[in-house]
This record gives sequence, structure tokens and C-alpha cells, in this order.
Amino acid sequence: MPRFKITIEYDGTGLVGWQRQDNGPSVQAALEDAASAIIGHREDVLVQGAGRTDAGVHALGQVAHLDLDRSFDEKKLPLALNAHLPPSIRVLSAALVDDDFHARFSAIGRSYRYRIQTRRVASAISRGFVWHVGQDLDQSAMEEAAERLIGKHDFTSFRASYCQARSPIKTLDVLRFEAEEDGLALIAEAPSFLHHQVRNITGTLVQVGLGKWTANDVSEALAAKSRPAGGPTAPPEGLYLTAVTYPG
Amino acid sequence: MPRFKITIEYDGTGLVGWQRQDNGPSVQAALEDAASAIIGHREDVLVQGAGRTDAGVHALGQVAHLDLDRSFDEKKLPLALNAHLPPSIRVLSAALVDDDFHARFSAIGRSYRYRIQTRRVASAISRGFVWHVGQDLDQSAMEEAAERLIGKHDFTSFRASYCQARSPIKTLDVLRFEAEEDGLALIAEAPSFLHHQVRNITGTLVQVGLGKWTANDVSEALAAKSRPAGGPTAPPEGLYLTAVTYPG
Repeated sequence: MPRFKITIEYDGTGLVGWQRQDNGPSVQAALEDAASAIIGHREDVLVQGAGRTDAGVHALGQVAHLDLDRSFDEKKLPLALNAHLPPSIRVLSAALVDDDFHARFSAIGRSYRYRIQTRRVASAISRGFVWHVGQDLDQSAMEEAAERLIGKHDFTSFRASYCQARSPIKTLDVLRFEAEEDGLALIAEAPSFLHHQVRNITGTLVQVGLGKWTANDVSEALAAKSRPAGGPTAPPEGLYLTAVTYPG
Repeated sequence: MPRFKITIEYDGTGLVGWQRQDNGPSVQAALEDAASAIIGHREDVLVQGAGRTDAGVHALGQVAHLDLDRSFDEKKLPLALNAHLPPSIRVLSAALVDDDFHARFSAIGRSYRYRIQTRRVASAISRGFVWHVGQDLDQSAMEEAAERLIGKHDFTSFRASYCQARSPIKTLDVLRFEAEEDGLALIAEAPSFLHHQVRNITGTLVQVGLGKWTANDVSEALAAKSRPAGGPTAPPEGLYLTAVTYPG
């Protein structure tokens, strides 16, 4: 059966997240239903994502793979799937890949963007797509603190207590800020992330931006290797999975 | 009674537009109800906008005025109003103005932005906030055609057949394009506009961008002074009232 890699954009508002669950609509279930529909419901199709995103988290470049029981033109497959998907989930592209390609296990990098709005009044237009902090943040203090987290560390203080990863040791390659029109964005890149890692780091760095934490407090939190030592979890609506990278 | 000028941002999705109507929620009704609430419902408050926006049209800088029966701090008035407004409507700022200030009649300029998305697959994130044309557009051809419309003209061919303005003659000061991440935006500035003028101009210029119309066709449409001679009306969701300007 031909295997396809697909790249997906979605608005996580109102979804239970990437993973199929009984308690509400998920991206995975919508894609599996769409894939099954385009092959005439001859079988259930498994759509395997590169990473699970939480309820309310968005994606600009989630990647998944699926096997179909017949060949499809790479340009027509996104159109066929999109015809069976809600407008909040769009397949951007599809590519035929080798049988040993695996969206999750072949991935060598994930990129996230966390959008923070600092203007006083929350935006009517971007609500649900940014975290409205509503206060000025000290970006240089946040940058200094972010540097303490770059590299290979035990990130226990910044992972969800129920995170299922075998090891809390991860290597953060990029953690930097970019100015946005009404605030700033945190860009995070790593081979892989722990559950809630980006949101917990964001919540902690915002404490630094507000002057409540120092860069040294962040270093101490990291060294404590204990979730209660880390800062608060930023809400899901500011987070975007922007890209997943593969060898070659 | 003190008069206040307020600047308002709103997401027009699901609203019947600026003007109070019986058939659904409007920005004006929401603001009037909020203003009445903050003075303890002692009277109905009239909120007069600078311009009416249609159902589905957004605003980043709509302006209105209202008279309150007591003084308010200019910084606290937006917070007080926002507490009584849905998150899709936000008062950005308030300023005490003279009794002779009138949001509509004192205005000397209006600015609009029309966002057009050209990427093939519609965005999951910006749906409802752009017009998804989904095809490449010839921007230089559109710019040449736009120049034919700049200046003082009879815009009968580009106004809604039911437009109530006394004269179809308007002066378009600015009509230019700006690149956007997934497409382009048309910026239009004039002292005032006719009903549907920006949407009808946008719809016509997109025909030029698609190669279906030439700049000369646009000139001929303008000269015809007849709505059927103009191009199609672009949908409301790409349009934003970005600013209203006043003397001084």
C-alpha cells in the first residue's frame, strides 16, 4: 500500500487536540475519517502524527503519515482530503514516501511558536490565537533567562507531571524571541519535546518578563528537577506547531 | 453631558454589521447596551459611529462618539465598557471631546484594508479574516488598474445599487497593494466611501489580477457610471476598517 506524508494546518480552538479521544473532535479522527471516505470506506485508515498537540493548540505544519489502498496523485490528495474535513483543518500538501517513513519516529526536529500579546486591551481579531498577557514584558531579561535553558538538560521542572516520556533529558537547540505587531513570540526548536514543555517554559519566561523571576531563578528551577520548582503553564491558545523536520 | 470619542476593534463574523438591526447582534447595539449599563441604565445611550460596516466586515479602528450623564476617566472608560461587551468587540481607547465633535460628520478620512489570500489551500487559521482567492494574482496589472481609480470620479459603477449617498462622486486618495505572507492586501483611503465601494473595487481588481480584465476595462467600467459595468463584489470577510481620521 502506498504511504503518504501529509502536512496539516489547523485551528485547535474547540478541538480536544491532535489525538483521537472519546470526549470531542480531534484532528486525528477527522483525518482518519476523511482518509477512509476517499477510499470508499473500504477500511479504517490509521493516521500517525509527528506529535500530539493539546486541546486549543494550533498547527501550521503538523506532519502525519497514512497508508492508502490505492495510488493517489500527490497534488490531488490534499484536495480530496480537504473535501471531507472541516475548514478548521486543512491538508496543505502530500508526498509519496517510502514504507519505512514514520511521521513520529523519522522526525529529527520540531519547531514551535508561542505568540504573546502585550497590548493592554485584548484583540478582538486574534482572540484564541494569542496569549493576552496585557502588560509590557522585559524582552532582554527574558532572552537572558532563555539562554539558561538552551542545550541538553533534565527538563523535569518544565514537563507535565503526567508526561509519559521515558527520559526528561532533552536538547533545546533554539529558544529565542521575535517581535510581533502587538507583542512578541517565543520560537523553540528541538529534536523532540516533553509534554507541556514549551508552555511551561513560556509561562516561566513571562514571569521573568514581568519582573517576578530572574534568570537565576530560572537556572535554579531547572537544577531543581521538580515540576513545582518551574513556573506556571502558559495557556494553549498561543501555541503553534510550526514545522516538523526529517532527514534529507 | 460629557462627550467621548471611542476607538473600537471588532471581529465582524456573526454580526449583522455596525448598525443596530432587529435581525441579529450589531456593534452599535452592543456598545449602546454597554454604555447604558455603566451608567446604571438611567437612560438609553446613543452611540454614533463614523461609518457603517456590513455584516462580516471587521474593524481595527472604528470610531464612535457617545454622551454620558457623568464624567469618566479616559483610561477607565474602555475597561468599563469592555466588561459589558463580548470578546469580539473591544474598546481600545476613549478621549473626552468637545460637544461639537461628531464621529461621522467631523471625520475627514477613512482607511480600509482588504486582505486577499492567494495560496492554493485556504488557511485554517485565518478563515473568516481573509478572502481566499486561491490563485496567483498579477500584482503589477492590478496596480496599473488601481491607478485608473485614484482621484475624484463618479463611482456609480462601484457602489451598491441601494447605496443611499446623495452623490456618487468621491475622491480616492490612496489605492495601493501591500504584500502579505500568503497573499496581498489592498489599502484604500478617502475622505469617505460609498456603500460597497471598497468591496466592489477589490472584486474588480481581482478580475484584473486573474487576467480576466485589463486596466482599460476598469477605466471603461468607471466611465460607464453604471453598477452592472463594474466587477463583482468581494466578500465581506477580507475587509477591515483600519482608521478614521479627524482634523488636528
